Amino acid sequence: MSANDVNRQVVLTRLPKGHLTPDLFELREATVPVPGPGEALCRTRLLSIDAANRAWMQGATYRSAIEGGDVMAGFALAEVVESNDPGLAVGAIVEADQGWQDYAVHPARKLSVVQPRLPLSNHLSVLGVTGLTAWFGLLRVGRPVAGETVLVSAAAGATGNVVCQLAKRAGCRVVGIAGSDDKRRYLETELGVDATVSHRDPELRRILKDACPEGVDVYFDNTAGPLLDLALSRMNMHGRIVCCGAVSNYDGDAPVAGPRGVPGLLVTKRLRMEGFIVMDFYAERAAATDDLAAAVADGSVKVVEDVIDGLEQAPQALVGLLAGENVGKRMVRVSA
Amino acid sequence: MSANDVNRQVVLTRLPKGHLTPDLFELREATVPVPGPGEALCRTRLLSIDAANRAWMQGATYRSAIEGGDVMAGFALAEVVESNDPGLAVGAIVEADQGWQDYAVHPARKLSVVQPRLPLSNHLSVLGVTGLTAWFGLLRVGRPVAGETVLVSAAAGATGNVVCQLAKRAGCRVVGIAGSDDKRRYLETELGVDATVSHRDPELRRILKDACPEGVDVYFDNTAGPLLDLALSRMNMHGRIVCCGAVSNYDGDAPVAGPRGVPGLLVTKRLRMEGFIVMDFYAERAAATDDLAAAVADGSVKVVEDVIDGLEQAPQALVGLLAGENVGKRMVRVSA
Repeated sequence: MSANDVNRQVVLTRLPKGHLTPDLFELREATVPVPGPGEALCRTRLLSIDAANRAWMQGATYRSAIEGGDVMAGFALAEVVESNDPGLAVGAIVEADQGWQDYAVHPARKLSVVQPRLPLSNHLSVLGVTGLTAWFGLLRVGRPVAGETVLVSAAAGATGNVVCQLAKRAGCRVVGIAGSDDKRRYLETELGVDATVSHRDPELRRILKDACPEGVDVYFDNTAGPLLDLALSRMNMHGRIVCCGAVSNYDGDAPVAGPRGVPGLLVTKRLRMEGFIVMDFYAERAAATDDLAAAVADGSVKVVEDVIDGLEQAPQALVGLLAGENVGKRMVRVSA
Repeated sequence: MSANDVNRQVVLTRLPKGHLTPDLFELREATVPVPGPGEALCRTRLLSIDAANRAWMQGATYRSAIEGGDVMAGFALAEVVESNDPGLAVGAIVEADQGWQDYAVHPARKLSVVQPRLPLSNHLSVLGVTGLTAWFGLLRVGRPVAGETVLVSAAAGATGNVVCQLAKRAGCRVVGIAGSDDKRRYLETELGVDATVSHRDPELRRILKDACPEGVDVYFDNTAGPLLDLALSRMNMHGRIVCCGAVSNYDGDAPVAGPRGVPGLLVTKRLRMEGFIVMDFYAERAAATDDLAAAVADGSVKVVEDVIDGLEQAPQALVGLLAGENVGKRMVRVSA
């Protein structure tokens, strides 16, 4: 690392109107920033590619909105290459709100150090925010009981595949919604999902009913949109809907209407519908991570990842993710 | 009571299209039914007039749908006038799915005996299903904490007024939504509600914001519709929405769309939205009734009732209730 190094940055030149397209991004070069007192310079190792990245372009959510001209925001695993904090060693692996760039400077106190116990990528998938989102969302919000039916949308996605596997491990019947035959086959044959349906099937209503002969007790909703309305119609009394994301709403304008079944079906079926953000549960993070690591070790949760090489691939990686092309956790390897 | 007595019945001649109107009902005379073994003949004393009566005309909910030609369904306090069950005494007051008629026969085991401790009408309002709905919905579903802001729609209605008073008693700031100046004045001056807004005010969005300067922690939703969407926009992090009813959806066709903020705002604000039916909590009914009686005794809950005389008035009473003309619990006195 020298003063001559460049910091490649992927900039979102302007906010999308309608679908996100790769031409809205531009790769630029900047100088590597210099950490001040108490700060650390971090080099991006693995960049997390998430549907939420697109949602951030729609306005403030649980974080501030992205504006045109900003370096694209993104969560990453990074390595400390320079540290002005005696408590943070060079070489440490940290979770950081790094952005789509080679380097970023952060106050050391805002960085969370990761002690890798599995291949690094696993700390962005099953042992990272993705796996924890599945774990807390399913077990702390959805609270399935053995024998219940758990329905999962975007079931082959980063969070969905872990939800499916954790629900099987909890003794539930698991039904996954996924858009391609390959994904559905993978879910059924590799991950032990009991049944799958395609949201592209014109007979979806009937097929979903057949796949859930005893109704749905927990619906883990990653998509919102028409699937949420359909799931509401299949919920059992005292069912729970885990609101994890709204992928169907992200890549375009904000939705004009919500599900028709709300609040009518919530009342008649006594449903609980609850949103959450993984950070809310971080008091329990260590225990959840241990449990996920144990599940990986005993084979009850397989690690499903989709790693793409090169920072310059990040725009296409996100556009492709929004189109549903990934199976498992998509990430971009920026440096080895 | 003799064989010559008639049983007046209000029949819903056909299902409404659009708004409910009194001409859809017809008063007929039938013979008084005769109780069989284990059954009891019950004379209607007080008929509960509820927005839910209208919802039952839209299709099956938590009870089967009403069809054209049926005696109108309705909940009532009734008096046992003939009993073929040794465990049920003549003269007992019972809660019954009586219908809009003078007399009905029920299996004795399906009747719940009321031990009147306050004027009988109070057992249909604050100590009856209405008060219990407020108590369980607010305290068991909404779970407000002292100092939080509780927003209540249909605040001057049967359930709403009790919710407002229980929330004040729990140490909350209470904001009520009501459609007329009279109702709003009543809520503020008689029931101690901190602020009120009218849903008819064209400036509602701004006014609601002013009335809830610290946001909303619990929204007790009796109406659904645009108010629910507006409340969603004012909810604080980790807020709770108690789905009690959807009055705005009942008197017409089923809604075509739900609230836009669902599920997006549920996720970003980590909201819980939960429906309930009072019967779900009946294991705790005695304790809740005792607490409500204590609140009435110490003056922290005033009993607000709107009693109309005469079975033949029931259609207009329901139509008027759907138009929002009542303050407090509306009921029809059928016999003294």
